[in-house]
Amino acid sequence: MRILITAGGTAEKIDQVRSITNHSSGSLGVELAKAALQKGTITVDYVWAKGALLPPKDPRITLHPVTDTADLEKTMAQLLQAHTYGAVIHAMAVSDFTPEIAATQEDLIQGMNTWLATKKDANFTAEDVPDLLRAILEKSQSATKLSSKTEHLFMVLKQTPKVIGRIKALQPETQLVGFKLLVDVSSTELLTVARAALEKNQADYVLANDLTSIHEGQHHGYLLDKKGIVAEANTKAEIAHLILDTLLERQEVR
Amino acid sequence: MRILITAGGTAEKIDQVRSITNHSSGSLGVELAKAALQKGTITVDYVWAKGALLPPKDPRITLHPVTDTADLEKTMAQLLQAHTYGAVIHAMAVSDFTPEIAATQEDLIQGMNTWLATKKDANFTAEDVPDLLRAILEKSQSATKLSSKTEHLFMVLKQTPKVIGRIKALQPETQLVGFKLLVDVSSTELLTVARAALEKNQADYVLANDLTSIHEGQHHGYLLDKKGIVAEANTKAEIAHLILDTLLERQEVR
Repeated sequence: MRILITAGGTAEKIDQVRSITNHSSGSLGVELAKAALQKGTITVDYVWAKGALLPPKDPRITLHPVTDTADLEKTMAQLLQAHTYGAVIHAMAVSDFTPEIAATQEDLIQGMNTWLATKKDANFTAEDVPDLLRAILEKSQSATKLSSKTEHLFMVLKQTPKVIGRIKALQPETQLVGFKLLVDVSSTELLTVARAALEKNQADYVLANDLTSIHEGQHHGYLLDKKGIVAEANTKAEIAHLILDTLLERQEVR
Repeated sequence: MRILITAGGTAEKIDQVRSITNHSSGSLGVELAKAALQKGTITVDYVWAKGALLPPKDPRITLHPVTDTADLEKTMAQLLQAHTYGAVIHAMAVSDFTPEIAATQEDLIQGMNTWLATKKDANFTAEDVPDLLRAILEKSQSATKLSSKTEHLFMVLKQTPKVIGRIKALQPETQLVGFKLLVDVSSTELLTVARAALEKNQADYVLANDLTSIHEGQHHGYLLDKKGIVAEANTKAEIAHLILDTLLERQEVR
């Protein structure tokens, strides 16, 4: 069986020297790759966010380095068109937003005045947002490295494409495992949000975890499918084996 | 001689899972530590940005991990009060800005309307900025993890304290080496900006480099002092040895 694993966190460039990064050591991805190799005849395409931990060197693992979400989207589309995967385990922490505009305080002031001069009524609505952004963007210099002299820096970020949402469209037969990380919520809320993500992304499984339950050596997670909780695990290695065993069992049943 | 080296890049938290990071592998810091050890009796306090490459394990090197600029400022103040350093080599890529407000599009709209309702005249000036920011801040939820559902995310960043500017105030006798990285400028501009940074921060030396002259295995840099260019170097190891040799020579002359 050929599988695709994504791991690590994306980095969205602000300029040549700064990025917005999503925290992820990549160690869960490494555990997934190790578990996959232990299960025998698995070939792994490993989509690796630069800077994350590397999986073991092994001829069965092919590394595909990516930096940002645009990179990830392109690489995933190429791989999903080139190969048939028994499973896609999308463990990468993917940025929801990418910088669209970075403006100095001076740019903001000029842009605000341009916008105020053309504004039609007293209220500010969602329809005014694009006009205001355009006015600020026109004032902001396209900088290779942003000036550090302005008192405030204003950034507008736009949503990134939802890569996970496109996987089943490209390969309806693959078994898709998504991840949902929340911070300090009840287990009920965590499971509800994870269940919604499963349905939205047409995932077969979602691993739901909470940052407050991840500590040195410990990593609690629930593996969910459409029917409910498949099982719980308490370390990254346990999570990795639970996911791989569940996928292989389902593969045999097919 | 005891020296202090800072290396790697800072990460300023946006929320629990995202940061603004300054790119820096930390490999120049590692070369500096190696060169220091080769020069003999040097003890190194190594202020290390988490995630960067680690210096060699050696009893003469003490590691001080930091994450963000606030962390760096605190650690530097403690070290500079506790020890007398022959030299401080501040190679860390330090964020100029740190997130102050992160607001959804909905927060921005509400904040703008609050501000528009109280605004006194037709113009938007620097004096209006704090009022507008306060209005938006009041609307933005203090999120542990920002909602990924808003179409745009608006971030306001404020300047971080300039750590390098405080080193000589705490230890006037130390030899301070700063770094200036620009992107794709002429050598004249690079040297002018580096010279200004040297004066502003009361540095004894500045290593001036341009991102476009840094490639795999190559790293061009000018070492400057008040009088002008001390020397040029073409790799990270050359830069490290040039800096250490220059510092030790000056130390002997004293």
